[in-house]
Amino acid sequence: MPTRKPRNAFYAQSGGVTAVINASACGVIETCRKHKSRIGKVYAGRHGIVGALTEDLIDTSKEPAASIRALRHTPSGAFGSARYKLKKIEDNPAQYERLIEVFKAHDIGYFFYNGGGDSADTCLKVSQLAEKLGYPIQAIHVPKTVDNDLPITDCCPGFGSVAKYVAVSIREAGFDVASMAKTSTKVFVMEVMGRHAGWIAAAGGLASEKAGDAPHIILFPEITFDEERFCARVQECVEKYGYCAIVVSEGVKNSDGKFLSDAGLRDAFGHAQLGGVAPVIAQLIKSKLNYKYHWAVADYLQRAARHIASKVDVEQAYALGKAAVDLALKGHNSVMPTIVRTAHKPYKWKLGIAQLTDVANQEKMLPRDYITEDGFFITAKARRYLSPLIQGEDYPPYKNGLPQYVKLRNAPVRKKIRKTFVV
Amino acid sequence: MPTRKPRNAFYAQSGGVTAVINASACGVIETCRKHKSRIGKVYAGRHGIVGALTEDLIDTSKEPAASIRALRHTPSGAFGSARYKLKKIEDNPAQYERLIEVFKAHDIGYFFYNGGGDSADTCLKVSQLAEKLGYPIQAIHVPKTVDNDLPITDCCPGFGSVAKYVAVSIREAGFDVASMAKTSTKVFVMEVMGRHAGWIAAAGGLASEKAGDAPHIILFPEITFDEERFCARVQECVEKYGYCAIVVSEGVKNSDGKFLSDAGLRDAFGHAQLGGVAPVIAQLIKSKLNYKYHWAVADYLQRAARHIASKVDVEQAYALGKAAVDLALKGHNSVMPTIVRTAHKPYKWKLGIAQLTDVANQEKMLPRDYITEDGFFITAKARRYLSPLIQGEDYPPYKNGLPQYVKLRNAPVRKKIRKTFVV
Repeated sequence: MPTRKPRNAFYAQSGGVTAVINASACGVIETCRKHKSRIGKVYAGRHGIVGALTEDLIDTSKEPAASIRALRHTPSGAFGSARYKLKKIEDNPAQYERLIEVFKAHDIGYFFYNGGGDSADTCLKVSQLAEKLGYPIQAIHVPKTVDNDLPITDCCPGFGSVAKYVAVSIREAGFDVASMAKTSTKVFVMEVMGRHAGWIAAAGGLASEKAGDAPHIILFPEITFDEERFCARVQECVEKYGYCAIVVSEGVKNSDGKFLSDAGLRDAFGHAQLGGVAPVIAQLIKSKLNYKYHWAVADYLQRAARHIASKVDVEQAYALGKAAVDLALKGHNSVMPTIVRTAHKPYKWKLGIAQLTDVANQEKMLPRDYITEDGFFITAKARRYLSPLIQGEDYPPYKNGLPQYVKLRNAPVRKKIRKTFVV
Repeated sequence: MPTRKPRNAFYAQSGGVTAVINASACGVIETCRKHKSRIGKVYAGRHGIVGALTEDLIDTSKEPAASIRALRHTPSGAFGSARYKLKKIEDNPAQYERLIEVFKAHDIGYFFYNGGGDSADTCLKVSQLAEKLGYPIQAIHVPKTVDNDLPITDCCPGFGSVAKYVAVSIREAGFDVASMAKTSTKVFVMEVMGRHAGWIAAAGGLASEKAGDAPHIILFPEITFDEERFCARVQECVEKYGYCAIVVSEGVKNSDGKFLSDAGLRDAFGHAQLGGVAPVIAQLIKSKLNYKYHWAVADYLQRAARHIASKVDVEQAYALGKAAVDLALKGHNSVMPTIVRTAHKPYKWKLGIAQLTDVANQEKMLPRDYITEDGFFITAKARRYLSPLIQGEDYPPYKNGLPQYVKLRNAPVRKKIRKTFVV
């Protein structure tokens, strides 16, 4: 039987990055390196699929093993990510012809795409290149999103670490405000991500283990904001506990269906809103209840906080990267490895598999029964689901008091195609 | 020689709390417990000096050793803090007579006050009770302030941990933005504390170890904000590095001497500014340079972040608490133990002593030669000073994925005075 040089793999990161997406990259690359007879080099797309379209590829084989290993503890997307969505094959065949041209030039037989719902759709479209355009390729999606909104998989890598950051941070800030409340700040508002679903906000609730613990109120995108009921609840907390700590999702909407953050701020000249729902909530409390307040907006800090990553999250991120390669080696195409929960307490999980047609463009919403009836907190059911995902610490190495994150060389692969492609 | 029952100690926390003020409390209480023949019970003031004035005392002897030990890893002020300043003895003698009444009723012979510059002034006034009003007491100040602005001491407990939080956070967010910059966010703005001095903002500079590392720009309260020069610098960074990460101090002022945060925001109705300089800076960048931005306001998260505390900071906080008791046992009054730096690299420090008359109401400003000539970054000299203060990690214990911070019982001491006192 004639031996054939093994085909190469393409790997890219897509959408908003996380504290552990590089742990998935580590899982993909380390696993590929263990199967050199089956998979050639791993070429990473610089800035996601854009790197494929522009033939801007990174030769990961130039990275020493220690650098690849260090990806496991490095937040962000080491190869650059992108917010870029492919059109349908029918609507933009040139884009797909270009992809095939690049893949062919570099003998790409495996396509690993690491992202959320939109990215699963891109991966699905690439997986159809074989069937629709006759280019043989296996496309496997590696799940990632802090929003935790992918279907089928029990959870999404990236979410557990944000969840941990949010729960730790509101616990710490809650202790702080409790100390100050007698003569100073009585209300603290922390804004967290999650424009469409309240998964991240819900995680803040884990910090409260008994009555009176911070946070006292959570504002979800799923629950229409009711100013009067909210203010009454804040006042109740301040009177009962001396202070009130609030987690608010950036996606909270008023009864007109508008984001509170949009409704809120103008600059001094009256134009252009600046985002940020925390100051809007804080201002409301000040004007209605006259409590001294502080507010924080964690923004990127929450999703980049590798220093306080969840160990479960890191392990799952790596495992899913590895699983993607294993699935490819078994001949799969158009699939995504998933996390299957087999027990709540003690938490147990195993790997599963989902068809990309069932994953792409589907959002898993926070179930209503994860939110208490009054709309201001999480239920025991939510806690049972969320708690395992923040378990364990996985500290990065430190030098000079700072976490040592790796910056890869990211050596370019020599271009083989003269024609450029504008994205 | 007749033996006398040892006199009791009063301990209280004052001003804004920190990640390590409880480590000082731990140092004070554990050391007092080791000298039971010399010091009786430690009574903590509930909410700082307010607890003394209202005879609202906490009997720390009711706390088991494990709880006191756990203060070492618990952020915030376990006994409650207060923003409350005593008047001059001449201006409000009734206040001091009340203090003496309470101290006498509970046989307080030692007064340990844990705070910043304003609190040192309170401690100084109490130290004068002996001389001016004939009540024998030894008052020792335990330094604490995230602002790092106390004179004489090389640094202030609380600062090192905020410094570490800020440096770690901007490094992590910098990695995140670098990944996204090609097709999305190009500028990230992180607001940090420090209304009067740029110590905390300066610490962000430690994250940048070589050219191109985040942060690229630091905005100090000491440097008048120049919109044009700033925008030019942002553009330069984006063009050179692909993105720009900025640390901005809440205290940045414009050429009129006004805080940028005050100049900035109005709510939708045009009234009431909400604070927050980060969104003002972000908006400016958007309107002048049209870069996509994200911004974060760390607020209390930065000073409460015990999970990423500096080991050096925790050790110094404990050591200063212990030293305060040792100074009292040696007969001192009206002093503050200090940190004396004896070597930069490897960093070495020892304990010193300062007179409260030299400490109270003095602010140590960030030296101009810690800021680069262009006003946008820190110098090598600043780095040499700051770097040792963030060294080492001192992780709290975790349970269920969350740091286990102690909540004390805070059992009240039975009141002995009928008369109430309104503060």
